[in-house]
Amino acid sequence: MNSNDINKLLNHLHQKHLACSEGSTANYIPELAKANKDHFALSVVTVDGQTFEVGNFEQPFTLQSISKPFVYGLALELRGKEKILSKVGVEPTGEAFNSIIELEKSSHRPYNPMINSGAIAICSLIDGKNIDTRLSKVLSLFERLSGKPLKIDEQVFLSEKSTAHRNRAITHLLANFDIIEEKSERSIEELLDLYFKQCSILVDTRNLAQMAATLANGGVQPLTSERIYSTDFNRDILSLMFTCGMYDTAGDWAYSVGVPAKSGVSGGLIAVVPGKMGIAAYSPLIDHHGHSIRAERAIKEFAKTLSLSIFS
Amino acid sequence: MNSNDINKLLNHLHQKHLACSEGSTANYIPELAKANKDHFALSVVTVDGQTFEVGNFEQPFTLQSISKPFVYGLALELRGKEKILSKVGVEPTGEAFNSIIELEKSSHRPYNPMINSGAIAICSLIDGKNIDTRLSKVLSLFERLSGKPLKIDEQVFLSEKSTAHRNRAITHLLANFDIIEEKSERSIEELLDLYFKQCSILVDTRNLAQMAATLANGGVQPLTSERIYSTDFNRDILSLMFTCGMYDTAGDWAYSVGVPAKSGVSGGLIAVVPGKMGIAAYSPLIDHHGHSIRAERAIKEFAKTLSLSIFS
Amino acid sequence: MNSNDINKLLNHLHQKHLACSEGSTANYIPELAKANKDHFALSVVTVDGQTFEVGNFEQPFTLQSISKPFVYGLALELRGKEKILSKVGVEPTGEAFNSIIELEKSSHRPYNPMINSGAIAICSLIDGKNIDTRLSKVLSLFERLSGKPLKIDEQVFLSEKSTAHRNRAITHLLANFDIIEEKSERSIEELLDLYFKQCSILVDTRNLAQMAATLANGGVQPLTSERIYSTDFNRDILSLMFTCGMYDTAGDWAYSVGVPAKSGVSGGLIAVVPGKMGIAAYSPLIDHHGHSIRAERAIKEFAKTLSLSIFS
Amino acid sequence: MNSNDINKLLNHLHQKHLACSEGSTANYIPELAKANKDHFALSVVTVDGQTFEVGNFEQPFTLQSISKPFVYGLALELRGKEKILSKVGVEPTGEAFNSIIELEKSSHRPYNPMINSGAIAICSLIDGKNIDTRLSKVLSLFERLSGKPLKIDEQVFLSEKSTAHRNRAITHLLANFDIIEEKSERSIEELLDLYFKQCSILVDTRNLAQMAATLANGGVQPLTSERIYSTDFNRDILSLMFTCGMYDTAGDWAYSVGVPAKSGVSGGLIAVVPGKMGIAAYSPLIDHHGHSIRAERAIKEFAKTLSLSIFS
Repeated sequence: MNSNDINKLLNHLHQKHLACSEGSTANYIPELAKANKDHFALSVVTVDGQTFEVGNFEQPFTLQSISKPFVYGLALELRGKEKILSKVGVEPTGEAFNSIIELEKSSHRPYNPMINSGAIAICSLIDGKNIDTRLSKVLSLFERLSGKPLKIDEQVFLSEKSTAHRNRAITHLLANFDIIEEKSERSIEELLDLYFKQCSILVDTRNLAQMAATLANGGVQPLTSERIYSTDFNRDILSLMFTCGMYDTAGDWAYSVGVPAKSGVSGGLIAVVPGKMGIAAYSPLIDHHGHSIRAERAIKEFAKTLSLSIFS
Repeated sequence: MNSNDINKLLNHLHQKHLACSEGSTANYIPELAKANKDHFALSVVTVDGQTFEVGNFEQPFTLQSISKPFVYGLALELRGKEKILSKVGVEPTGEAFNSIIELEKSSHRPYNPMINSGAIAICSLIDGKNIDTRLSKVLSLFERLSGKPLKIDEQVFLSEKSTAHRNRAITHLLANFDIIEEKSERSIEELLDLYFKQCSILVDTRNLAQMAATLANGGVQPLTSERIYSTDFNRDILSLMFTCGMYDTAGDWAYSVGVPAKSGVSGGLIAVVPGKMGIAAYSPLIDHHGHSIRAERAIKEFAKTLSLSIFS
Repeated sequence: MNSNDINKLLNHLHQKHLACSEGSTANYIPELAKANKDHFALSVVTVDGQTFEVGNFEQPFTLQSISKPFVYGLALELRGKEKILSKVGVEPTGEAFNSIIELEKSSHRPYNPMINSGAIAICSLIDGKNIDTRLSKVLSLFERLSGKPLKIDEQVFLSEKSTAHRNRAITHLLANFDIIEEKSERSIEELLDLYFKQCSILVDTRNLAQMAATLANGGVQPLTSERIYSTDFNRDILSLMFTCGMYDTAGDWAYSVGVPAKSGVSGGLIAVVPGKMGIAAYSPLIDHHGHSIRAERAIKEFAKTLSLSIFS
Repeated sequence: MNSNDINKLLNHLHQKHLACSEGSTANYIPELAKANKDHFALSVVTVDGQTFEVGNFEQPFTLQSISKPFVYGLALELRGKEKILSKVGVEPTGEAFNSIIELEKSSHRPYNPMINSGAIAICSLIDGKNIDTRLSKVLSLFERLSGKPLKIDEQVFLSEKSTAHRNRAITHLLANFDIIEEKSERSIEELLDLYFKQCSILVDTRNLAQMAATLANGGVQPLTSERIYSTDFNRDILSLMFTCGMYDTAGDWAYSVGVPAKSGVSGGLIAVVPGKMGIAAYSPLIDHHGHSIRAERAIKEFAKTLSLSIFS
């Protein structure tokens, strides 16, 4: 497919799905609820560095759970695979992203790093002499992935921090089961601050498409040519995104789209077509699984039209 | 049975079960782990005020979960039955005392006030202008029940506070589900302080037997003649102790002993024989359900010998 | 309270609750769905043999789950307590009467004999050289409890047999976990036939009140003076009815009524006031827990008016 | 990699893992328990029809769960995707292959067709005027996939039929939830017969490798050039094998091997490398997940050595 055709397809999908007004903005984080419902953007970056984009592709929004697979890769680089696997599993759960039930099961190890319990445990493994050092490792990761400086949305951060009762509950259970080393109120609060800041990093779909294209390109950022992940860890990230990235609809996504993907409750969604391209979409209206409705439909149709499934 | 026979029976049971050294002190609260394993006491107070006791009946230990039914009664008096039932149910769970799973079920209301989630929610309903006022209501309750001034064990309180990851997790989930009004870190910390102090009140089996005898006597303290609970609320407390007081062995206790009872992980155990007497036992060696082994066996045998089951 | 007052109260409750038309007949067994919605009866038999009754007290209906506590007592008499407790527990579950989930938990032993899994396991323990011998033991039990010959409703039996997919599932799981000895399709079918026939025995509220009065009278039928259960097993039956008889509303019933009780989906409900009386009610309109709505409300009000709670 | 190297690698892996004697033969089906523990075979068939094999590659054993993805594809062809998805989902569960718990969850639809509940529901959708017609559709499918006539092991069939209490329980629950149309004892027995016969079809690793190679080749049998599945349904089969084929270790398999796979309790295991080859292994010693230990280790090492992960 040539560049013209991709542009035409993206424009068509943007126009078609903008008409849909189903879903609502994330209501459990007050700041996210304020997002502009009309925003809708699509970006594609190929492994040879071509960029295609339509809509509000420079509109910033927070990463939220899209940060999870990338920070998982960082943890693999920093701490090694053995350590990581001893703390967080790689199995899909069939449960929602914020499920707490499976922590009560035999091993008490979070099922995978794409659900909140696993992501918080991974965040705990990003080490450093203080929270600033640790945060700068995370922020720097996303800046190298995006090829540009990034900021944290302090309003969203504070909003999450003040309403995250369930994430606090999860973190205290992780402490109870010795999955994390943080035990004092202060260190747990620091861990949660780090996690909420990771979730509050501001990106646009252009950044996200480059991040996804890096994974599509075996771990090498296609525009800067910087290697971000080793080939091995890049493969691990993609496996997990494929089996667990879309939570309790991961199976449906694998079945109907067939490429690794990750969504965030702020309305972002990325898909990785290995060896070909990274795809990103944004629209703040989400369904009850926490996936952006416009983004999911547009990427599904894009993948289907171009037969992008890894099993095609 | 005359006084001589009761004394003889208590002495026999004390001697017999002191020989048992099964179980271990509660290891998840470091201060409790330090208890003297040889301590063993039995006390009985009848509704007409007679007292029988053997062993270390003046040895103080902390109330822990034995506080739950009594504070539940206080909450009923302070806030009314409708309010209480809207926040905490009255159903047994078949789960352990510190279970978190059932909070994820449909209503998110704790199943009953005898498990930790329900007891923390009840604690949240003991109102007052600040934590000192609230604590003094709780402490005063137990002083009126025991007929004497009581203290809080600050070492146990601090020990619980610093290790209670699971109780913190439960409390944050209660906040998440709007079962409790506390939302800020500070107010949640205050609630937990109140709860841990309630658990850290020091009593001996003589005090406990008077507390149990108060329930046996329709809510009136048999030695001071003070009415502590209305007849109605006293009945509610006894119903709950019968169906839920012994957690996941509540059914077994009802079946094999047949009187309302409540245990605490520090090693205390009370049983109420309505219209007759309150029974208390203490020994710090507990089983994996959190019940004192010597105390449970001695009270079981006492109840069986005297045919005390409410269904006999 | 004298006889006149009891009659007056029963008449008042009958008239008041007949006006209620909430609920629906049991729809999962087609024959039960055909019951006359206007039928409503209340019967009381005291331990000294007085009978009080109002409404359709000679209207026959099938026992269904009301049979469970009585057959449990028969199994105790036939096989001994140790054997019975090795196969079926005595703990409440917090789950519905037809729950299958708890069988997957560690011991695979049904939680208690009041839920279907436990009742089928108990039925398997009623031994005999063939199904007729076994059935005659069960039928004879209920005839001695009722003081008169009883029949089985063949239509209801066949209706249950042809629709009981969930009970078949439960029975095959019991076979899988070696809780029951039946392994062949034929022996499992026989066990289910026995269980469905036990459930299809026809009684009226007069019979039920005598059955309940037998339990209230320590195991001795008050009109025939025949001892049906030993004192010990009678107490065991009452304990179980108290903690588990009303399934997932057992706690609420204990809290708000405070006497052992058992309901059946055909619309029957019995309550036992130890040392005083047996109470029975019938009306086929049931709620989603499987309890007759008119029967539950009438007995609740009867018990409250007369302060019958065992903890009053 | 040339043919010599593949042969060398297979010989090396065969010798190396034959030395391992961990695991045991499937003990819940008596006939399977009798398998020869020394048997071990590896076969590879490429999409251009080359065959590589070592060990007991002509030793027949029964398909068991390896039949599931193939019959799922047949059901798609016979009944259409919409019908199939209305009866059986596509989500991984995190549970064991014979789990019954998730059927109690909201939709009552089996999570996916790789676990027993889903596979039995799929079997119910293979229509025909009687069981022989239906069975011949299934048998014919596997004969076309293997390129040769196949037989059913009657001993294994009868052994499964007489011990399958859990599968009967699952089937009755499926009837209860109207997932299957079979309601009578007779029709349910027929369905189970069909399912157990599907599981009892005899194959060797040479057959299995051709079956796997068909999926690797987009649905076209590489030796006979017959199209067995449409491109679309072939992709659906592979997606499901990838996310759900290895049950509660599906995530680990995706993470550490990275190709669609399916195991059976008789000791067979297949893996599909899209566009390249089908791999099959057999050894009857299985682990507690039901996977052949030698087979799993040999295929893992084969895939790793040749970097076969779809995300490499």
